[in-house]
Amino acid sequence: MPSKPFRFQTRIRFIDTDASGRIHYTAMFRYFESAEIEFMRSLGVTYGGRVLDFPRVHAECDFLVPMVHDDLIDIEVCLTKLGRSSGRLEFRTLKDGKLAAKGVVVIVCVDKEKQRAVPIPAELRAKLEGVLCKLEEH
Amino acid sequence: MPSKPFRFQTRIRFIDTDASGRIHYTAMFRYFESAEIEFMRSLGVTYGGRVLDFPRVHAECDFLVPMVHDDLIDIEVCLTKLGRSSGRLEFRTLKDGKLAAKGVVVIVCVDKEKQRAVPIPAELRAKLEGVLCKLEEH
Amino acid sequence: MPSKPFRFQTRIRFIDTDASGRIHYTAMFRYFESAEIEFMRSLGVTYGGRVLDFPRVHAECDFLVPMVHDDLIDIEVCLTKLGRSSGRLEFRTLKDGKLAAKGVVVIVCVDKEKQRAVPIPAELRAKLEGVLCKLEEH
Amino acid sequence: MPSKPFRFQTRIRFIDTDASGRIHYTAMFRYFESAEIEFMRSLGVTYGGRVLDFPRVHAECDFLVPMVHDDLIDIEVCLTKLGRSSGRLEFRTLKDGKLAAKGVVVIVCVDKEKQRAVPIPAELRAKLEGVLCKLEEH
Repeated sequence: MPSKPFRFQTRIRFIDTDASGRIHYTAMFRYFESAEIEFMRSLGVTYGGRVLDFPRVHAECDFLVPMVHDDLIDIEVCLTKLGRSSGRLEFRTLKDGKLAAKGVVVIVCVDKEKQRAVPIPAELRAKLEGVLCKLEEH
Repeated sequence: MPSKPFRFQTRIRFIDTDASGRIHYTAMFRYFESAEIEFMRSLGVTYGGRVLDFPRVHAECDFLVPMVHDDLIDIEVCLTKLGRSSGRLEFRTLKDGKLAAKGVVVIVCVDKEKQRAVPIPAELRAKLEGVLCKLEEH
Repeated sequence: MPSKPFRFQTRIRFIDTDASGRIHYTAMFRYFESAEIEFMRSLGVTYGGRVLDFPRVHAECDFLVPMVHDDLIDIEVCLTKLGRSSGRLEFRTLKDGKLAAKGVVVIVCVDKEKQRAVPIPAELRAKLEGVLCKLEEH
Repeated sequence: MPSKPFRFQTRIRFIDTDASGRIHYTAMFRYFESAEIEFMRSLGVTYGGRVLDFPRVHAECDFLVPMVHDDLIDIEVCLTKLGRSSGRLEFRTLKDGKLAAKGVVVIVCVDKEKQRAVPIPAELRAKLEGVLCKLEEH
């Protein structure tokens, strides 16, 4: 049975707006990162070890609804694909219950010293396989 | 005959790195924005009027080569599509002449007061049509 | 009797680190801003009106203890001075209960249209006077 | 005879503005950093070695004139003090030749492994002593 998406709530901060009066689009990736980290924490996973890095090889986002300072947004995070050394996270940002943005981030597991992709360690893989899910269409 | 891409050079700044030692991936969108603004300036176009806004409805990037503090990068910008009220910019980031990242940003022309998409003004359209181009494969 | 400082908790985000492995110092001002906004919210005050702006005319920070990704920090906010059209906020960042950074931000109340300093409106002033306080030395 | 300040030119980028329509104040520290790095480069010094780090222990800025997207600014950098293991940089931001901001950053030379302040290496010190200067009052 597929897992439910993890949900992370945050506010649009003033520093993340621009002179258009709305959020600067790049800030959504910042909020995706916070959502991802809290999602990982909920699995007992924290980044920051000495052996592995998790660089992003792809990132994208569609912006559907204007967002402004102080908006309260909910971000749903789903791990939708798990490869030998990579994972695909999908995000949905909801504002007042309405889909405001949706994004994808593809992450690779890299050995810090060798600077090349390596298989996701078994313990981490086991945790991630348990939460593979699919974002429902809104 | 298709135009040649506009080229913008910048350095990876320390503030744009993260604890992995490399650039934080979101910073590439910052550099794309600078490249876009200088590309527009080269056409005699500057943002910041009182009537129109140019929000992004889509952004994406693939990261191919690690980039670190002080790397000198060249960003090629191409306007590859021009709709009634939108445009598609494609970017290629070169490091030491090698493709390090490639991205897309889709921009919509919005009436500030009405807050909805409007046709690109004729004068701006004429300038943009003159530079429609295609990024060559590397 | 002086008020107690308002307290805001946050985590150091990965995007806010740099290649030194620690927080990039500018990010502390980002966290100060979040603390300020939540402090104001606790008083029933939200920024974002159509008449007034609150630009910063001075900002400073001392950094005492290294901070890294995922550190949980508490920020104490105090309004320590209230002028006719300005206010001084002082901040203390605590990590594991230890003073890690301390900062000051001086804000001016500006009329958006006239683009010059104006007196703080009476209603806002009343709320702020009620919370004037002094940060204790640690 | 005191040296002349180093001068760095940049534009205010759109991403560095906020919903007030002006620059977000924290972005000035970003531009100070770029100015500092180019100042150091002009002395033949680049950061990024394996032994030393240069964290900031103090930063401050006064904001005197509103700055907006696309403003062309000049930043003057002066090394005004050199201690055993620290240095003080002063910055002046000029917009249309008028003083728009002025700031200070105090940097400490830290041994990466020991994580404590160490004397500035002799070769670096020699270069820095040669450019000690004083910012003139405007």
